Amino acid sequence: MIYTKQDYIHEAKQNLRGGIGDVKFEHLLAGDALPKNCRLYAKITLAPGSSIGEHVHEGETEVYTFIEGTGKVTDDGMPINVAAGYNMTTASGHSHSVENTGDSDLVLLAVIILG
Amino acid sequence: MIYTKQDYIHEAKQNLRGGIGDVKFEHLLAGDALPKNCRLYAKITLAPGSSIGEHVHEGETEVYTFIEGTGKVTDDGMPINVAAGYNMTTASGHSHSVENTGDSDLVLLAVIILG
Repeated sequence: MIYTKQDYIHEAKQNLRGGIGDVKFEHLLAGDALPKNCRLYAKITLAPGSSIGEHVHEGETEVYTFIEGTGKVTDDGMPINVAAGYNMTTASGHSHSVENTGDSDLVLLAVIILG
Repeated sequence: MIYTKQDYIHEAKQNLRGGIGDVKFEHLLAGDALPKNCRLYAKITLAPGSSIGEHVHEGETEVYTFIEGTGKVTDDGMPINVAAGYNMTTASGHSHSVENTGDSDLVLLAVIILG
């Protein structure tokens, strides 16, 4: 199946996981379009200063593929600077957060795979 | 876990699935870095005229997220033009192929999720 811009679902969430500001989701795949064992396949945009607070994943792994901008993540509480071209995995039982520390949008692909 | 350029594994495959020319893989996650239930998470580059031949996926779904360039896919044999910004899913029991029909590289993220 092929999906294009008009198929993508846009969503904004405020103070996600206790974070700051708005987080914009562009769901590239959603609902029946998602593969089995995949519950999120979305482009996420954080404006400068915005963040997703630290949270744990259970029974799933989240991959962040950083596309644009610069930011800071925590990986089980450890702060690490990230930029376009970085990838991050957060496996079951582990925690992460992400914050835009730059002066332009931080854009990443977020993929959550069950298991 | 954080992965950067020096962690990515580069691989070239010729005439993949009966296709034309070389296909370059940049494995953003590989081996132990891959999430459970994920067997491929790679940026794929096809030079102009190169292709991956038609093939069926069984017991897994592949997602193509087109990043740069233009091309043509087949989706269960049906030809469809694609470009940067398109997404494609090929679920278990279904087939696809991809060909670079443009004059610059066709770049896509390929994610294979088991299930």
